Amino acid sequence: MLKEVEVLRISDGDCKRDVDTIVEEMSLALYINGRHVQTVMISPSMIREFVIGHLFSERVVKDFDEIESIRIEENIAKILLKSSPGLINLKKVVLSGCGGGSSFLDESGIPKIDTNFNMDSGLLLRSVKEVLSLDLHKKTGGVHSVGLFDKNGAIIITEDIGRHNALDKVIGHGVIENINFKDTFVASSGRISSDMILKCISVGIPAIVSKSAVTNLAIDIGKASGATIIGFVRGRGMVVYTGKI
Amino acid sequence: MLKEVEVLRISDGDCKRDVDTIVEEMSLALYINGRHVQTVMISPSMIREFVIGHLFSERVVKDFDEIESIRIEENIAKILLKSSPGLINLKKVVLSGCGGGSSFLDESGIPKIDTNFNMDSGLLLRSVKEVLSLDLHKKTGGVHSVGLFDKNGAIIITEDIGRHNALDKVIGHGVIENINFKDTFVASSGRISSDMILKCISVGIPAIVSKSAVTNLAIDIGKASGATIIGFVRGRGMVVYTGKI
Repeated sequence: MLKEVEVLRISDGDCKRDVDTIVEEMSLALYINGRHVQTVMISPSMIREFVIGHLFSERVVKDFDEIESIRIEENIAKILLKSSPGLINLKKVVLSGCGGGSSFLDESGIPKIDTNFNMDSGLLLRSVKEVLSLDLHKKTGGVHSVGLFDKNGAIIITEDIGRHNALDKVIGHGVIENINFKDTFVASSGRISSDMILKCISVGIPAIVSKSAVTNLAIDIGKASGATIIGFVRGRGMVVYTGKI
Repeated sequence: MLKEVEVLRISDGDCKRDVDTIVEEMSLALYINGRHVQTVMISPSMIREFVIGHLFSERVVKDFDEIESIRIEENIAKILLKSSPGLINLKKVVLSGCGGGSSFLDESGIPKIDTNFNMDSGLLLRSVKEVLSLDLHKKTGGVHSVGLFDKNGAIIITEDIGRHNALDKVIGHGVIENINFKDTFVASSGRISSDMILKCISVGIPAIVSKSAVTNLAIDIGKASGATIIGFVRGRGMVVYTGKI
């Protein structure tokens, strides 16, 4: 996911040719049952997980059995579903954030989260620290990292140029591994906007915590669903916006 | 664009009820000639500028005269164009980044930038510093800021939960004020991905500089178009990825 390029580095008036490590971005066209529905810009890793997670987090499918097959050919993902995806054109909400994706979620009809989320605050602090310590994040400054955790620690952590993509990737991993999302939480480097919390509750993840800020719509959705949202997890502190801890 | 909410603040094991300032997020449904084409999540400021800038930067229109009228009613923007927008459904590329927006741009057919961009590096350093010093950016940590500059300094600076939205807002302002984009550059707090540079060159802005990182696709597009891309503008240094300085 890294590339080296020649650059001109200017520092303190001094100017020299140099080599810089940059983060890779690729386009991925999603075809469902032969029809082009979206092209997303993602980081070239965990592409299959991204596709599966995206289908679930955008509520195109609710069950793994609904997916007949997924074939990834270079920049194209060909998805065959057993039935035609009625939801896909209902509402194209375009996301706000680092991690792109046009979201098909509708705020009306927010699922209720059935949760006894009661995570140790020490674990929450450690989870965000772990997510932020990833190599690419430190090396390029150009990616977001998102991890899926349970009470024993990290299940999977991934990085992507987009925070929504990274979230879709960990959700895809969870679906493939048949993880019960009820007992997990998401830790993220990026801002928690409405779309991030919607993706979580769509698959039943009861809580999201982040190093960054939280928007008002995310809080509204958190309250309506019962999900826990915690922002500014830094050092030894955090801010609890909704839910219990 | 700010709201106060009740939160639980946890610090060093200490836990207290507190009030926190958060950033607002609103949905805006875009209707073109009566048809719903997108819903975007944006910050509630400069909404008219956002709509106009979005139409231009996504190449839905190329001339102000093509827009018959724009009416904004709460969460809906009703846009009437003189002719039907053929491009809109050609290619929906979903963006990678903080600032959302599904982009209708196609990399093939990248316009060439006709530029003598030769900006003083002192001005570039100051421009990024100015963009980062905005109030909301410091207060909430939850927004991106983008400014349009010329050799005399800032023309307009705006903030939004999404970096693409903020860029659309300054482009909209430039269109309304009839500014010649050839003599301007964009300074941004957020990552420069392919979509950000595509938006700039769509309207003829020859350069983009940022505090943050740059992706490989942005560099490819910068090289193909002749635009200047400069990242990691921090302190007294910067990294020139494409173009001249």
